[in-house]
Formats: sequence, structure tokens, C-alpha cells
Amino acid sequence: VRTFKLVLAYDGSDFHGWQIQPGQRTVQGTVEDAIEAVLDTRVRVNAAGRTDAGCHARGQVASFRAESTLPAAALRPVLNARLPEDVRVSESTEVDEGFDARRSATARRYSYRLLDRDDVLLRRIAWYPGVSIELDRLARAMQPLEGDHDCAAFQATGSSKTVTRCCIHRAQWRRWDSGSMLDVVANHFLYHMVRNLVGTALAIADRSDPAAAMVAILASRDRRRAGPTAPPQGLCLEQVFYPEVVRA
Amino acid sequence: VRTFKLVLAYDGSDFHGWQIQPGQRTVQGTVEDAIEAVLDTRVRVNAAGRTDAGCHARGQVASFRAESTLPAAALRPVLNARLPEDVRVSESTEVDEGFDARRSATARRYSYRLLDRDDVLLRRIAWYPGVSIELDRLARAMQPLEGDHDCAAFQATGSSKTVTRCCIHRAQWRRWDSGSMLDVVANHFLYHMVRNLVGTALAIADRSDPAAAMVAILASRDRRRAGPTAPPQGLCLEQVFYPEVVRA
Repeated sequence: VRTFKLVLAYDGSDFHGWQIQPGQRTVQGTVEDAIEAVLDTRVRVNAAGRTDAGCHARGQVASFRAESTLPAAALRPVLNARLPEDVRVSESTEVDEGFDARRSATARRYSYRLLDRDDVLLRRIAWYPGVSIELDRLARAMQPLEGDHDCAAFQATGSSKTVTRCCIHRAQWRRWDSGSMLDVVANHFLYHMVRNLVGTALAIADRSDPAAAMVAILASRDRRRAGPTAPPQGLCLEQVFYPEVVRA
Repeated sequence: VRTFKLVLAYDGSDFHGWQIQPGQRTVQGTVEDAIEAVLDTRVRVNAAGRTDAGCHARGQVASFRAESTLPAAALRPVLNARLPEDVRVSESTEVDEGFDARRSATARRYSYRLLDRDDVLLRRIAWYPGVSIELDRLARAMQPLEGDHDCAAFQATGSSKTVTRCCIHRAQWRRWDSGSMLDVVANHFLYHMVRNLVGTALAIADRSDPAAAMVAILASRDRRRAGPTAPPQGLCLEQVFYPEVVRA
């Protein structure tokens, strides 16, 4: 049995998220179907981040175990020929048998794109919150987040994760062509955390001291103090980090 | 009878172009249906540019004549409530009865977006030609185009337009977030002209003197000397210019 690692990009607009669900079009189900067609065996694919419906990925990482004599590099073109055009495999490699895309990951990078104005061409990959917010104010709201924090205030209500401590390596706002973009890297993320951070930054951006407001919300550990959850379409899993991937 | 002017934005991915065709989903048909639902009368809508299937618009202009007591500004929200999410009205005004979106236009601005690398999230609004081309070489290829020229070499084969002279006010390549973008303004455009210009620029970009190659193709007036037609998804009608629009 060999272990394979795939790097995947997908437009999540027409998927009910990553995770397989009966009767729904999901990325996991679509990828598992393609692998079954190619390797003639049903496998279970694990992903580094289980993206929600409408969320995207440019650098999702998935792993699976299968018996096969196919060279790992050949999986990429062979799977792409089977997959629909809204999912692409950008890399396929063989890895050590201990590798698991989810458990082995040491950090993840997400982006969230805001629009300065409504744009029908970008409505699937970015969100227009109804007003244009100054980048500088968003940056000030986010500045206290870099570091090691208990992020319970940003965890979706009803979520069961008990470890709410996250080490946030980067939380920066910058410009993209059509608005502002959050670029955030952390060792792990709580459920809806990025979307809750974006909703909170927007909610406190016009305060006299957005950074102080963010510090208070973080310290409260209270989801009700934070802002609403930003909608899914602005979110993209850009990259997943691993300590070292040794090819078998 | 009053004359109305609409500014429209649409994602052309799921339309068979602007022009109405029986049994096909077209932008014109969709807009005329929405107007019929709102004003209870069937009108014929004229557009400044009849975009092809898969091409987009941020600033298409359309006009129509109808009897109605509705304030022109109210048309925008009322139509948007009826229209699908891939077509939006960004402005609605009343204009002089002589106004016709197509005939009255004095110039149009189009963009064409190239990708530096394949990107599943942008595949509907930009084109990856399989290689990344240096912006500087594209700019040199395009530089001879600004001015008044016979553009017959860039007109689709079989097209019947007899006036092939175009005054190109601007033909510039610049960067966008994910690649290079052509920004072109002219008094009028021949059928497939922008897509043929892009295909030609790519075809001659690696010549020792791309500008000289473009001059020779232009002078030949021969479609066979120019490059292939770039695919539709990179093209967007950004803006239409009028000499003056007097509100009634």
C-alpha cells in the first residue's frame, strides 16, 4: 500500500463543501470518484482543511492510501482528465506512509477577499459588504492578532473543539485589484474562524481604536462579542505547510 | 413614449452571448423578459456592443423605448429584483428620444485578461494561454496600434463590415493581480477584433521586433497574417462613451 499526496485547487461555488455527503456534489466525493475511476479502487481521501460550501482552495492538500503501480507524477494528468473543470490537481507525489494531509499539517494559509464595490464578475470569489472600508482601519483591527492566543471568541457557536489556542503567524490586510484582502497563517484554525475574524474586523473598523476593540473581544473569549460570520465566497485555502515531506 | 438608457454588468459565462436567439439563454432575452415583467410591455433592447457567448460586461449600455410612468431611477432596483444574479443594472436614466445605445456611441473600451498561470478560480473571467508572456513584449507588439488604421487584418473571416477603418485611442498592456491585461479604446470595433488582437500579440511577442511584425500585419489587411482568435472568457466590455446624454 502506498500513500499519495495531492495538491488541489477548486472553485467551491458549485460544491456543497469538501466533506462527502449523500446526494450532494462535494469536492471529496468528486475526487474520490475520479480516483476510483483511475485506480479501480474506492479510497478515503483526507484533506488538510474541510472547506465549507462556497469556499475555495488554491492549495488544498489531500492524502490517500492505495495499491497501485502508477507513477505518482502520472496521477496529476490522469486525474485532471477525469475531474470536472472546477477541480484541478496541481501536484501529485508519493509520500511516507505516516503522512496524513490533516494530521501532519503544521500550518495553513487562508485568504479572504473583499470588494470595494459590487462586481458581478467577481461575486463568486469575493464579497462586497455594502460599503468600502479603509484598508488602514482593517489592518489596525487585525494587528493584535499575530501571536499565540485563545481564539474562542472566533469559534462558531456550537463547535466542539476544546483546544481553542491558536498560534497566528500572520494576519495582514493588503490591496488586491478590486478591494482589500486578508492574508492569515496559523498553526490551526477553529470552525468559521477566518470568516468570523473578517466579520469582526468590519464591525469594529470604524471604532476610534479598532486594535483596542479587537484586544477586548479576544480577551472575552465570548463569541457574542465578536462580529457576524462573513459569507463563504470570499474565503480561499491558499496553502498548507508540512514539516518535511519525504518521498517514499 | 419615453427612451430609457441602462448600464449593465454581466457574467457572460452562462449566456449564449448578448443577442436574442430562440431557445437559448441570452443577455438580451433575459433583460427584455425582466422589462416585460416590470412594465407589462414587450420592448426591443439595443446594446452598444453585441458581446459573444462567454464574454462579459461591466459597462454595457442598452436603450429601449416604452410608455411608462415609472421614474427612470426606479428601474434599476426594480429590474435588479427580477434579474438573475449574473446580470445587474448599475444605472437607469431617461434620455432624449434620439438616443440609441448602439448608434449614438462614440467609443467603446474593452479589457482582455491573461493569466500567468492556470487558475481554477479565474477560469471564467481570464485566459491562460499555456505560457506566461512578458508584459513588455506584449506592450511592444501593441504599440503601433494607437491611431487611425485599416484594421481588416483583425476582422473575423466572413464578416461583412465594409468600413474596416478604426480609430484606436488606446491599446495598452498592464499588470493585473494574476497576469497581463489589454486595455483598448476605439471609436468602433470589427467582429472579433479584440480577441484577434490578443491572439496576434501572443503570436508575435517572441519575435525580435514585435512592433515591426504588428506593422506588417496591419499593412497586409490580411486576416491570415494575424494570429488566432483568443477565447471569449478573457474579454469584457468595460465602458461605452457618448458625446452627451441629455435627460428628458
